Amino acid sequence: MLTYNFEDRDCPIYEYVYKCVKNDILSGRLKPGEKLPSKRSFANNNGISTITIQNAYDQLISEGYVYTLPKKGYYVSNIEGMANPAQTPLDVDYDIEIPQKKQYKIDFSGNEFSAENFPFSVWTKISREVMTEKKEELMNVAPVCGVNELREAIARHLRSFRGMMVDPNQIIIGAGTEYLYGLITELLGNDKIYTIENPGYKKLAMIYRQREITCKYAAMDEQGVTGASLENVKTDVAHICPNHHFPTGITMPASRRYEILSWANAREGRYVIEDDYDSEFRTEGKPIPTLFSIDGCEKVIYMNTFSKSLSPTIRISYMVLPVKLVRRFYQNMSFYSCTVSNFEQYTLAEFIMRGYFEKHINRMRLYYIRKRKRIIETIKQSILSDKCEIIENDSGLHFLVKLKTDFPDSKIENELEKRKIRIRALSDYYFEKNEEREHFFIINYSNIEAEEIGPFLETIEKVLSEN
Amino acid sequence: MLTYNFEDRDCPIYEYVYKCVKNDILSGRLKPGEKLPSKRSFANNNGISTITIQNAYDQLISEGYVYTLPKKGYYVSNIEGMANPAQTPLDVDYDIEIPQKKQYKIDFSGNEFSAENFPFSVWTKISREVMTEKKEELMNVAPVCGVNELREAIARHLRSFRGMMVDPNQIIIGAGTEYLYGLITELLGNDKIYTIENPGYKKLAMIYRQREITCKYAAMDEQGVTGASLENVKTDVAHICPNHHFPTGITMPASRRYEILSWANAREGRYVIEDDYDSEFRTEGKPIPTLFSIDGCEKVIYMNTFSKSLSPTIRISYMVLPVKLVRRFYQNMSFYSCTVSNFEQYTLAEFIMRGYFEKHINRMRLYYIRKRKRIIETIKQSILSDKCEIIENDSGLHFLVKLKTDFPDSKIENELEKRKIRIRALSDYYFEKNEEREHFFIINYSNIEAEEIGPFLETIEKVLSEN
Repeated sequence: MLTYNFEDRDCPIYEYVYKCVKNDILSGRLKPGEKLPSKRSFANNNGISTITIQNAYDQLISEGYVYTLPKKGYYVSNIEGMANPAQTPLDVDYDIEIPQKKQYKIDFSGNEFSAENFPFSVWTKISREVMTEKKEELMNVAPVCGVNELREAIARHLRSFRGMMVDPNQIIIGAGTEYLYGLITELLGNDKIYTIENPGYKKLAMIYRQREITCKYAAMDEQGVTGASLENVKTDVAHICPNHHFPTGITMPASRRYEILSWANAREGRYVIEDDYDSEFRTEGKPIPTLFSIDGCEKVIYMNTFSKSLSPTIRISYMVLPVKLVRRFYQNMSFYSCTVSNFEQYTLAEFIMRGYFEKHINRMRLYYIRKRKRIIETIKQSILSDKCEIIENDSGLHFLVKLKTDFPDSKIENELEKRKIRIRALSDYYFEKNEEREHFFIINYSNIEAEEIGPFLETIEKVLSEN
Repeated sequence: MLTYNFEDRDCPIYEYVYKCVKNDILSGRLKPGEKLPSKRSFANNNGISTITIQNAYDQLISEGYVYTLPKKGYYVSNIEGMANPAQTPLDVDYDIEIPQKKQYKIDFSGNEFSAENFPFSVWTKISREVMTEKKEELMNVAPVCGVNELREAIARHLRSFRGMMVDPNQIIIGAGTEYLYGLITELLGNDKIYTIENPGYKKLAMIYRQREITCKYAAMDEQGVTGASLENVKTDVAHICPNHHFPTGITMPASRRYEILSWANAREGRYVIEDDYDSEFRTEGKPIPTLFSIDGCEKVIYMNTFSKSLSPTIRISYMVLPVKLVRRFYQNMSFYSCTVSNFEQYTLAEFIMRGYFEKHINRMRLYYIRKRKRIIETIKQSILSDKCEIIENDSGLHFLVKLKTDFPDSKIENELEKRKIRIRALSDYYFEKNEEREHFFIINYSNIEAEEIGPFLETIEKVLSEN
């Protein structure tokens, strides 16, 4: 039983008890895991009140020296090195497994960047300036759509890069496109039917399913999704990538765009979400105006991200809503907080307005064009050249390679996986098995080095000839 | 027709064409809106290939000098001031109104910070260091729960400040608590019934309504929500602030906490969301262990934010899930991306691990305690002192003042509003009219200066005696 001498104390009793127990814990007289006396017996033993012990214990708990187990009592924490808590082990490990990305030698499925492709020096400089010069602005809570400066900068960027004429107040900034999809489903309604392209971006289907929203798949032909296929699935909202479809690379021609708009206009409540995810890197193909630009009836929501043009780890995306929808958005949803930090919004705004973003994109575009050229040349000159066909529908950050093989795609993927190479087949992006579309593989080269292609081709060649 | 002299060129033909046309646009020889020759006729006219013209036009388009209309051709853009696009007006203004915060002279409802209360110098220093030393980590996509370093830092903070023993993998980081509520409803199900306290945080009800999720209100007594009131509304998930209720300031005593846990345990699928939004500033009252800490049956989701302790504009919140739920979370929802930028996650992690967060909190706590004391003294010494009663249930960042008046709360709010003072009444936080709870006003002093209290009291006095 703990007994202390209360005669020499120079502070309130509860504080004195707190100090005594704390000292005993720090000195090791009380060992980690040791049970402390109950409040009542501690109090009785020392001739003081239970409340006093309660206060002392509470203080010890709040500082981490003591923990409590429900219906059991008070115990001494493991305070080893607690003066510098960063060095103590946390002592809690429930063996919870976070699904981790596998590590590959070569990964054609990633969308990460190597650090040398991020404009660190300019970004650091601007972010320091922002923190020095915009202290007040940084502390002012932004409206739901994001800070004005960034929306203005994005409107200018859209004008000069995409020929889009947009009011900054039509732009909604959010922490990633996934988050923005959530806002869209809230804006248009959970009871609507959403449709994605087949083949298409499967993660979208997962998001819709997770939110218990009906999600269908619309068939594509060589020009993209058709009005008929959208009619066919009786959808309300069509999510499409008309400017550079993933994974096929198709650019939807103008006539098809008007067909899609005509579908949207045929009925009240129909909308198109135009995902323009890698627009900044599509300069070789013909630049076709966005669906948003040719939409005269407020049916198109334009969506883009800085994940491809800056880094996916920076978590800034935006959407442009038609005027009618943006009014509804502010009316119903302006109580939400913007999900992107002011610090990064102001930094990005300055980065765009001072012309650094344009320079960065130009540099990266050149870098990708060169890389792409080198990769394609390497394939053409390789041992694999007569066993494959390169399909370049457009520039952007990926193209397709069709392998002349009878092996099913899964076999090739698995064999490569064993050799620490990750590549995805076009067939993976179909929502049902489709044998006609086998043997196409997606060369997404944003995250690989041109030098890695040689060894990759040799490995593929080995896999194809082995069995 | 455009004709250029190709003899003196010092670059590839396409680049030369590009430069010539660009110069003509910049000089005004080619006017905005003017149609450019078709590729074929331009090429024939100058005796060069169509491809060359195509490349030149593409370059002009990508830089915004030229735009294209489908099936019509190429046109000169309006490039007025384009050398410095930031200075050109955007030319699009649809008169879309973004709901703006009103500006007040004194605002007791805000949760913003004055810039001098944000640790700018340390934050800037650490963020620069992070950008210099952690380039690779900054570019690696974080798992859905956030970067490991920050979750580890938060686990340590929770241990030392809240006596909570938490595995870092139980912590999910997100861009604001609103976003995390969305994850919770996806995790537990949209079909569940969610309940918030009455009085309580109305924004939560708006979020649930917006997502078409059933939201009910549970009555409180002087110890907080009761098990009976939760039974009464037949809810599945109870959202409560047991540690410092907003707006009443009630701290739920331990016995009531066990009652709530007992309610949760009585049926499968019941959960409690414990919102600990301003825990860092509640040191005067007795620190009662969190519901999460005394929950032995994995029924409590703990929720906290850096909005109060750092800034609401930084958009970092987190929740701690019980082991069973966090496993389900990773199983079903790990395809999501974390919504907080790596840059800020690493900066905050370092900020906590190096002890700056603790120092900052201590400094702010002292600042708030002093401010609170000064405000209360000012009230007590003021002309209003015998017309009001101060109700301090706990420390934290607000307390209540009961005015001795017969005026309805709305009248007082409106009269003050006219005088550019914003204050909220307790009755505003009830979901139905409750006359018994009239005349209590919330003095949330985080965003006001102690000196502003004098003029505020005089204004109130004037309002009370005027009519």
